[in-house]
Amino acid sequence: MPKLPGADFLHRLADIADRETLPRFRTDLAVDSKTGAGYFDPVTDADRQAEIAIRAAIEAEYPDHAILGEELGLTGSGSCRWVLDPVDGTRPFICGLPVWGTLIGLTVHGRAELGMMSQPFTRERFWASADGAWCEYAGKRERLFTRDVGTLSRVILHTNSPERYHGELKQGFDRLAASVRMTRYGGECYAFAMVAAGRIDLAVEPSLQSYDIVALIPIIEKAGGVVTRIDGERAEEGGPVLASATAGLHEEALHLLNSGVNARAP
Amino acid sequence: MPKLPGADFLHRLADIADRETLPRFRTDLAVDSKTGAGYFDPVTDADRQAEIAIRAAIEAEYPDHAILGEELGLTGSGSCRWVLDPVDGTRPFICGLPVWGTLIGLTVHGRAELGMMSQPFTRERFWASADGAWCEYAGKRERLFTRDVGTLSRVILHTNSPERYHGELKQGFDRLAASVRMTRYGGECYAFAMVAAGRIDLAVEPSLQSYDIVALIPIIEKAGGVVTRIDGERAEEGGPVLASATAGLHEEALHLLNSGVNARAP
Repeated sequence: MPKLPGADFLHRLADIADRETLPRFRTDLAVDSKTGAGYFDPVTDADRQAEIAIRAAIEAEYPDHAILGEELGLTGSGSCRWVLDPVDGTRPFICGLPVWGTLIGLTVHGRAELGMMSQPFTRERFWASADGAWCEYAGKRERLFTRDVGTLSRVILHTNSPERYHGELKQGFDRLAASVRMTRYGGECYAFAMVAAGRIDLAVEPSLQSYDIVALIPIIEKAGGVVTRIDGERAEEGGPVLASATAGLHEEALHLLNSGVNARAP
Repeated sequence: MPKLPGADFLHRLADIADRETLPRFRTDLAVDSKTGAGYFDPVTDADRQAEIAIRAAIEAEYPDHAILGEELGLTGSGSCRWVLDPVDGTRPFICGLPVWGTLIGLTVHGRAELGMMSQPFTRERFWASADGAWCEYAGKRERLFTRDVGTLSRVILHTNSPERYHGELKQGFDRLAASVRMTRYGGECYAFAMVAAGRIDLAVEPSLQSYDIVALIPIIEKAGGVVTRIDGERAEEGGPVLASATAGLHEEALHLLNSGVNARAP
């Protein structure tokens, strides 16, 4: 394993991103749609400019690292790969809601090892480095720990939009939602941070890209939680993803999400 | 019309509320449920203590005003009535999501005239006093103005939870959601503030109490928007409520929300 960058470098990258994102939040910049039709997918100037700035800082410090970004794709190759989503939650960003974040992750041999989520409007950072998972609000640092509510009936579940589930995954989600205490919507990456912070117990998304989840994996894992795809495999490449506060809840939730699929197996 | 309190008094009440709510945000206080069963309705210590403190300040300054609060009900009588929801969005509050707010409104002869929403974690206030609708972030003040996107196909629609719609109102909501550019969830009172701020175009809720909406009505109206019940009547008493950025969008949205009802009329 190569020597990993320290938390100070993650904060330097977050500082660079914040300078591009925060001044554009709640301003009237044009919003394009990357996908011609179907589900709305805006991309803002903040997204592009922040990725350009983060890339420049990584390339100056770690020229042999690969970089995968939402805006500019994959550049470079090798065992260390940065994975960037400069504005995760572009929809809340354009709605003025402070639940978007800048996601900066690092995988080594395909496994997420470092992660940073920065939310400059609320002055918050959530990150994972060699010494664990941490958050900072208005300059005050604290360790992150998931909580253990014990049973599904006491669980707070989060997903962004219930209508993005279809077919067996919709049946699975409905089974899970019917088993928990409360289901909340619209929190984007902020909801995954709240799993790490011990405020939400399960966060599920039907269709994530690698850059939507890599930075969040070590933050949740080092806080005591579990992140996998719905099929139980590692989530670094994206797909339908479940993050859980505990291994026990993760197993129960995966069972409910998958039991339609399992029922059809021979 | 009696002489209305100024914005300075609204800020004094918000300061008082912030001292009770913010220190309890993301702490592990017990959460009770006010309703024994059915839809989850938590009430926190923050809610109770903030209402007690706001009431004391109002009673000292305006002893002849009535006060209606979520926690302690209606006290007093007369033409001036304060309407308080110390923590609107108790669910995001317990999830750690910064989209709750303290709502402080004043009705005169039943009509909402003054309103304050305070969100101390993000350091934001949104308020309406005699000189218009305003917001403040980290000490910087700006006027609030709704925007005009022209047609429903460009609209951002918000509601908290799509599963809270039933029967004809569900059909109406589905018609409306199918006509807009994007539907977002989970923003609570913060989403209504974003209508006033020109970031969201329509906010609809199937079942509000008076204290959920009174403070927000003058903020949205003085920013250029429209707030009514789904039947077109004033919203001060609560019910199914629609807030719109413009009168034109309001009329179009009410039509879609109600056309199932209208179709059955003789």
